[in-house]
Amino acid sequence: MTSPVVCETRVAVRYAETDAMRIVHHASYIIWFELGRVEYMKQIGSDYAAIEHSGHFFAVTEVGARYLSPARFGDTVKIRTWLDEVRSRTLVLRYEVRLEESDRLLATGFTRHVCIDGAGQVTAIPEDVRALLAATLNSAA
Amino acid sequence: MTSPVVCETRVAVRYAETDAMRIVHHASYIIWFELGRVEYMKQIGSDYAAIEHSGHFFAVTEVGARYLSPARFGDTVKIRTWLDEVRSRTLVLRYEVRLEESDRLLATGFTRHVCIDGAGQVTAIPEDVRALLAATLNSAA
Amino acid sequence: MTSPVVCETRVAVRYAETDAMRIVHHASYIIWFELGRVEYMKQIGSDYAAIEHSGHFFAVTEVGARYLSPARFGDTVKIRTWLDEVRSRTLVLRYEVRLEESDRLLATGFTRHVCIDGAGQVTAIPEDVRALLAATLNSAA
Amino acid sequence: MTSPVVCETRVAVRYAETDAMRIVHHASYIIWFELGRVEYMKQIGSDYAAIEHSGHFFAVTEVGARYLSPARFGDTVKIRTWLDEVRSRTLVLRYEVRLEESDRLLATGFTRHVCIDGAGQVTAIPEDVRALLAATLNSAA
Repeated sequence: MTSPVVCETRVAVRYAETDAMRIVHHASYIIWFELGRVEYMKQIGSDYAAIEHSGHFFAVTEVGARYLSPARFGDTVKIRTWLDEVRSRTLVLRYEVRLEESDRLLATGFTRHVCIDGAGQVTAIPEDVRALLAATLNSAA
Repeated sequence: MTSPVVCETRVAVRYAETDAMRIVHHASYIIWFELGRVEYMKQIGSDYAAIEHSGHFFAVTEVGARYLSPARFGDTVKIRTWLDEVRSRTLVLRYEVRLEESDRLLATGFTRHVCIDGAGQVTAIPEDVRALLAATLNSAA
Repeated sequence: MTSPVVCETRVAVRYAETDAMRIVHHASYIIWFELGRVEYMKQIGSDYAAIEHSGHFFAVTEVGARYLSPARFGDTVKIRTWLDEVRSRTLVLRYEVRLEESDRLLATGFTRHVCIDGAGQVTAIPEDVRALLAATLNSAA
Repeated sequence: MTSPVVCETRVAVRYAETDAMRIVHHASYIIWFELGRVEYMKQIGSDYAAIEHSGHFFAVTEVGARYLSPARFGDTVKIRTWLDEVRSRTLVLRYEVRLEESDRLLATGFTRHVCIDGAGQVTAIPEDVRALLAATLNSAA
């Protein structure tokens, strides 16, 4: 039994990501999840920009996030991303955001995606991409 | 039995809210929920800026969104916001985003909040604000 | 001698537009200029979404802004937009951002644009759009 | 005669930074300038988060940018930042954004700042910070 493939992405909090509560705005985490997702794809040997060039897009159909502790300007966070589920046309990724310095958990979340083509029609995830994703899941068994 | 108080907020899609898929980026809806929330508070007779001046903040502890159909630049959307639950220190709001022109449902979502003070400590929702919120809920019974 | 066509766009400050200085982040004004620009086009009888559908884009080639006084959450601002210059392939718009309540001037700015086609090549502004823009300029004479 | 201190910051284009023209939105560069500025301060031995903790803020009073070529999702850009001027209460920074792969120049810009205190009053740049900044300038002579 091995651990699942987890991708860690480091991000220094941007001043523009903070709000008048002097903490990072909650919508910024949704964008951080996206950064984690893009790097996850790269780490398993795929590349989301290349997938798009092939005419496939992973549209977001659902997002969820729980916020436990705030991040502030000056902090560096690490986004941990892993695959939770992959089917012929959909996938689910999960995320954890932690403070780099203390490893304190700031937020957890997930995104659900459906593969669409350039016309916005639901389509199968390209076979090579799905094989890479599936192999990642299996490695966790 | 009356209908719940539902606030409708109209927003013209901003070009900056779109992304390279030529649709509104999913994180933009989280910000639209916030616009709906602020207007909802105003409509029931409260004002979130005033609440903050009194030293209380409604920190977001959870957010969820489901995306059904995309919005594009040129569209105007209406955000429907209503209160789902209010307790001494927490509240839950629900949202629907629809195309103004066709009433087509684009997204649904919710946010959960906890009241905190300026030091970030959990505290009771100010009594007058909670009374306004509770009255809104009761009117739906 | 008449006044130039000036378009006024009202925007309630979004919480997400503020930063940890508790004021609106300076990059948000650049997006406000864009809102003013889109509404300006509509007011003179054009529509930027329609221009894009025709395969023309007004790419931004230069932007400048001066910040005189901050806006805060709770404020409503009005963006005043007017045309400064239009040529066969380029145009310049100017902006003022004022507090709605007091008319206090918060910022001034401009954007310079070049018309490009879908392939990113510089091209002439569509004749009907340029006529509308030119008429606006002339009305200021 | 030595070269000025130039700080290079690498940023992978975020999907959320693109717009419906399939390129990076022009306002995103203003935020990239900010990333460059924060890293510049760190590189010369200061830290903007620490400056803020001391009750000083470098408010932006002017920003300018020229856009020469677009960046796209999948690109990594490098932001070159250097100090152009420092006075008792103001400073000017300059920026270049280039594609990492080809070194192609995408945009140039500058920001002008004034030092303010927590009450928003103009105040002198803290002496130690100004010394670090001035040393940087002198090293370019």
